[in-house]
Amino acid sequence: MSRILFDLALADDAVRLSPYCWIVKFAMLHKGLSFETKPVGFADKSKYPDPAYGKVPVLVDNDEMVKDSPVITAWLDRKYPQNPLTATKAEKAAAEFYAAWVGSAFNSALAPMLMLRIANNVADEDKTYFRTTREARFGKSLEELAATPDAIEKAEAALKVLAAPLATHRYLGGGAPNLGDYIVFGSFMWARTVTLKELFQAPEPVAQWRERMLDLFDGYARGAKSADAA
Amino acid sequence: MSRILFDLALADDAVRLSPYCWIVKFAMLHKGLSFETKPVGFADKSKYPDPAYGKVPVLVDNDEMVKDSPVITAWLDRKYPQNPLTATKAEKAAAEFYAAWVGSAFNSALAPMLMLRIANNVADEDKTYFRTTREARFGKSLEELAATPDAIEKAEAALKVLAAPLATHRYLGGGAPNLGDYIVFGSFMWARTVTLKELFQAPEPVAQWRERMLDLFDGYARGAKSADAA
Repeated sequence: MSRILFDLALADDAVRLSPYCWIVKFAMLHKGLSFETKPVGFADKSKYPDPAYGKVPVLVDNDEMVKDSPVITAWLDRKYPQNPLTATKAEKAAAEFYAAWVGSAFNSALAPMLMLRIANNVADEDKTYFRTTREARFGKSLEELAATPDAIEKAEAALKVLAAPLATHRYLGGGAPNLGDYIVFGSFMWARTVTLKELFQAPEPVAQWRERMLDLFDGYARGAKSADAA
Repeated sequence: MSRILFDLALADDAVRLSPYCWIVKFAMLHKGLSFETKPVGFADKSKYPDPAYGKVPVLVDNDEMVKDSPVITAWLDRKYPQNPLTATKAEKAAAEFYAAWVGSAFNSALAPMLMLRIANNVADEDKTYFRTTREARFGKSLEELAATPDAIEKAEAALKVLAAPLATHRYLGGGAPNLGDYIVFGSFMWARTVTLKELFQAPEPVAQWRERMLDLFDGYARGAKSADAA
């Protein structure tokens, strides 16, 4: 029996930054599944279970290989029906909405705050690859990206939306976390594993929810190493 | 037995534009509740059931008066438990998220496209009130507001997020609509009752969902009058 998640890491391979890998780790913890993680860097795809695919998260569960966080979480719910990640079709639709929203409204605001910090903390063999691919993606140097005006304001505007349900619910899942929480919190873990510095001001309901998320599963996420503590 | 929704109207009082009133109308249709609507304008609060409150929607259900769309929909679910508007606490949290999101990401993009059109179509006695209050709210003239750059791009960026769940679900509620659909679609009805002109390009999954929403309840929303058809 083996269940291995290939998990993106920095030069210190205890630092696991990928928000999408975090979603999968939370999904397995939610279901009470044991798993190992195997750190991989950015550049050397030969270390990935599917080099041609060239991305993580990839879960290798005994003889099955599953790729891409939304595919993996849906597969986990079929393969291990205990503790469903979403209880209704509407909850599943909401999780898909949260994923699209967090990408467009929050990750895009975090990227200018994080990318240069990440570039400074990837393994030596990843440095050129990371800078080249990210500068191509953003169409500017990482230094120009880091100077993006209004990134903090954009992040805080997104968090105001998130504060609305969290003002009256402990989790997006209601009384207990569901896939929606893990999807959104993955991005908070992206920020936290890169730096413990507070990059933005979270509204009180969001700050409290973040503490609850850090406490889940015996503080699994709270114990995660960050690059600036490395 | 009487159930009366006070419903914001333009000079042609068959044109009912308020997105928040639309949410309440859909919620009552969802539950199979009969109701009447009573048109009210913008300025003369003495026609409102609670002039001091001075806003709609207000629902007067026999001897009970309930105000504000989120309060009214929660009250409807307690008073008339049939066909719950949300089936789980996570669905309720999602509906609250959708409400905050649609306000910040979509209504704010629609406002520049709609406000001057609305000003030109309110009743004569509402013209000064409407312009004065809205210009104070936006901090600029309605003509300056109408010239906001990127309003269409902002609306279309929001609709890309909405397209994510609707690419694989018929409704935000899954196989059938729930409160989340009514909340988001209220804003589409705001646009549609002001003008039948296509103000933005909706991605295909959103365009198809809009058609399904217009067809609900024997085409209740499709039959709604718009100001430019008046």
